[in-house]
Amino acid sequence: MDRAPNEIEALIAQVARLPGLGPRSARRLVLHLIQRRDQSLRPLLAALDRVAQSAQTCTTCGNISTLPVCEICINPKRATAEICVVEDVADLWAMERGGIFGGRYHVLGGTLSALDAVGPEDLRIPELVARVQAEGAREVILALAATVDGQTTAHYIADALAGLDVQVTALAQGVPMGGELDYLDDGTIGAALRARKAV
Amino acid sequence: MDRAPNEIEALIAQVARLPGLGPRSARRLVLHLIQRRDQSLRPLLAALDRVAQSAQTCTTCGNISTLPVCEICINPKRATAEICVVEDVADLWAMERGGIFGGRYHVLGGTLSALDAVGPEDLRIPELVARVQAEGAREVILALAATVDGQTTAHYIADALAGLDVQVTALAQGVPMGGELDYLDDGTIGAALRARKAV
Repeated sequence: MDRAPNEIEALIAQVARLPGLGPRSARRLVLHLIQRRDQSLRPLLAALDRVAQSAQTCTTCGNISTLPVCEICINPKRATAEICVVEDVADLWAMERGGIFGGRYHVLGGTLSALDAVGPEDLRIPELVARVQAEGAREVILALAATVDGQTTAHYIADALAGLDVQVTALAQGVPMGGELDYLDDGTIGAALRARKAV
Repeated sequence: MDRAPNEIEALIAQVARLPGLGPRSARRLVLHLIQRRDQSLRPLLAALDRVAQSAQTCTTCGNISTLPVCEICINPKRATAEICVVEDVADLWAMERGGIFGGRYHVLGGTLSALDAVGPEDLRIPELVARVQAEGAREVILALAATVDGQTTAHYIADALAGLDVQVTALAQGVPMGGELDYLDDGTIGAALRARKAV
């Protein structure tokens, strides 16, 4: 044995590869789990197993759910006229935490990227066009990152929807809540100045 | 649905309670696992399950192992004459990473603490005294934290072993490797000065 027994060392190595964890935090986490087997390790195993069995991708919007069509898409209270386009499920969850948007989503599964060779056929853009036509959406809100790839994708989607009777909008850019001008980058200050509003 | 489906939200809540993780990193981790079910989630489940089945506390030293007596205690190459006393298994693993110590360990399971009402009977101190007598150890090395509780525990153990024919030593205190004096606390500088050596 080098540090810990083989099965335990193997578990530490696997945990250390997860996002946000490293060898040291993985060791601490695994030790915590072993020392609290009944309060922590077994419930975690059961919860992981349930998710492994039930998690699936919503066939309509691409959200992760435990149903074939996700809780948002089958919710009759969510407006069908507005579709919010997000890059991935993490962004969808972030929008939902805001609790402002009452429409439905469309998860692209990434952004166009010349560097990573991601083209339009790799994203769920054709599905978006088909949904807009089938569901009669009146507005598509592009909630994509303010990066080069995000904005390229936004332009591509706006072009793809140009022939349809749908308004395409994007999230406003400007000073974030609690943001101090001194700490903001020049691009954000420029965008906020160009989009200035009457008080 | 509020943010994510129930089973997934339950898993995120459990992961968020683990040491070193919070709600945001737990969400990221769970999403990562779901999106890489075959490469990441299923292997992690299997590894966790193996550890849940096999991990146990060594009946001799208190180390965590997959055997009733751990790999260190059954290793004939490890000296029986030296017993290194550590607070917990994490400290044992830290000592093993150093790779210097060739003896065996004794895990106390904590330190004496008036605040947390941890008395000698809550730690594995009687077992240590019995081991020293039974195994004929010549040296007990106290590798305890340089805190008030750690040093109180060290003094208590030294007293408990006073009647036996065994030398009790403790880890040296001083300037850590790469430590700059300017950033060290006064206590460390004082201890290093008192323990100064001829060059």
